[in-house]
Amino acid sequence: MISLALALATAAAPAPAPLLTPSDIVAAAPRSAWQRIPDEDVMVIDFVGGGRTVIQLAPMFAPVHVTNIRALAKSGYWSGASVYRVQDNYVSQWGTNDSGKPWPAGVVVKPPAEYSRPLKGLTPRRFAFADPYAPRVGHALGWAVAWSPATARASLTHCYGTVGVGRELDPDTGTGGELYAVIGQGTRHMDRNIAIVGRVIEGMDQLSALPRGTEALGMYGKAQSPKGISQVQLASAIPAGERPGFEYMREGSASFAAYVNKRANRHDAFYTIAAGGVDLCNAPVPLRRVPAPQ
Amino acid sequence: MISLALALATAAAPAPAPLLTPSDIVAAAPRSAWQRIPDEDVMVIDFVGGGRTVIQLAPMFAPVHVTNIRALAKSGYWSGASVYRVQDNYVSQWGTNDSGKPWPAGVVVKPPAEYSRPLKGLTPRRFAFADPYAPRVGHALGWAVAWSPATARASLTHCYGTVGVGRELDPDTGTGGELYAVIGQGTRHMDRNIAIVGRVIEGMDQLSALPRGTEALGMYGKAQSPKGISQVQLASAIPAGERPGFEYMREGSASFAAYVNKRANRHDAFYTIAAGGVDLCNAPVPLRRVPAPQ
Repeated sequence: MISLALALATAAAPAPAPLLTPSDIVAAAPRSAWQRIPDEDVMVIDFVGGGRTVIQLAPMFAPVHVTNIRALAKSGYWSGASVYRVQDNYVSQWGTNDSGKPWPAGVVVKPPAEYSRPLKGLTPRRFAFADPYAPRVGHALGWAVAWSPATARASLTHCYGTVGVGRELDPDTGTGGELYAVIGQGTRHMDRNIAIVGRVIEGMDQLSALPRGTEALGMYGKAQSPKGISQVQLASAIPAGERPGFEYMREGSASFAAYVNKRANRHDAFYTIAAGGVDLCNAPVPLRRVPAPQ
Repeated sequence: MISLALALATAAAPAPAPLLTPSDIVAAAPRSAWQRIPDEDVMVIDFVGGGRTVIQLAPMFAPVHVTNIRALAKSGYWSGASVYRVQDNYVSQWGTNDSGKPWPAGVVVKPPAEYSRPLKGLTPRRFAFADPYAPRVGHALGWAVAWSPATARASLTHCYGTVGVGRELDPDTGTGGELYAVIGQGTRHMDRNIAIVGRVIEGMDQLSALPRGTEALGMYGKAQSPKGISQVQLASAIPAGERPGFEYMREGSASFAAYVNKRANRHDAFYTIAAGGVDLCNAPVPLRRVPAPQ
């Protein structure tokens, strides 16, 4: 808590008043607090009839699955796919619904269980508040992670907007052809049981505002119309002039520490009682759109 | 943890296998584990064009606001109202959008700040897992609550489906004419800053699957069509033959302890690694529909 308090004091020094919101802190963060997301890690889904969802991939946590997903995007595998499952307070899921469509070159059909990775190489920054799911939580490489000192392994965490790989029953791990996004309360019990490959950056409403499926597990019924996908591309494949660019806030920045602290201690014109703590999933890593490099 | 383990052993004794899901435990719960919700605490919202949302009111936590809400429902105040605000991963809000419509008899226009209540009389059952927001969390009278031994006050908690009273800036507390439901990650930072009056029992998708508002705070823009409300009634005002009836699972039952423990320790055909903990908002009190008494 001491380091957080110091960081807050540093970050807040130029501010006019003590009634900042988390958004105020993000808006005031200096250029140095932001880290560019590689275009190869940005996946753009365009829907039939308009609408776009942008996803950041996490190759450092699920490298084989992300390699699969990039190959699927580059090959046009998902053109004509759909969002065929929407389960309230759980997930929206898209793909070809295991149609048996042939895999393009470069897809590993039976990937390893990339549900966690060695802690080594991550040096996560610890989150200051209690977590009911894991002995340690924090942030590394711009992602919310959980880890165990006993196993020395770390995993990404299921929060709102987290993207994972649909699979059948264990030990199947899924290819990446069927993906889901969390559209409700963070489903943290899924951590370490399934491969997380990214998170939604923009266009979350394209997945969260859909009619819920009427069949078991939120699968769409015959009387429902799954939302069609027209194309999926990596940002790196989009011409430079049209390519969207994004940054995340570095967890080592003073702005990030101030942001988390303010999420835990809301006090402004609306909030009069601060909780003094915040859930990992309620302090999402700030993301922003930036102009493409010229 | 010892009492939980014992409860689980008791509840699981007749079960065939150790691979139960939380739903299995709820389905197998004996009649004695369930408590009828009074019809006067059940509010039924019917939408224009079909669709229904059912809400359980919590008079023991916000008595003046709930009295207002009952008076508004009985007077037909919300006929012609709408869902005019839908903010992704936050709330859907409905009412007349502070239209200035006259209050019916019995409405207290400036209610007290019923953001918490005395702990006395509740005797909550403690939740076994860590919470980042409050020194104590647990369940009382069928509701997830947080409390502080220091203040000896308890509050309801903002989880998915929690219903609260929209208000302007502090110290306004809202009348109950404008209500919201949480449609994303539990907004626990709002606890103790606003009046919680209930939770959605059925028809959550009528509020969560709506198009998100395009204006600030998710307010619907001029090009959007707010979802219309045709009528709002208390179940007690619906003829007995058509009246929906509901029960909640008692927190003191062995089934509830087993259910929470299984939420924290998923192990079945899909889950192979149990978290060993669960968030308060990810173990919602089981609710079920029952036939109306004959």
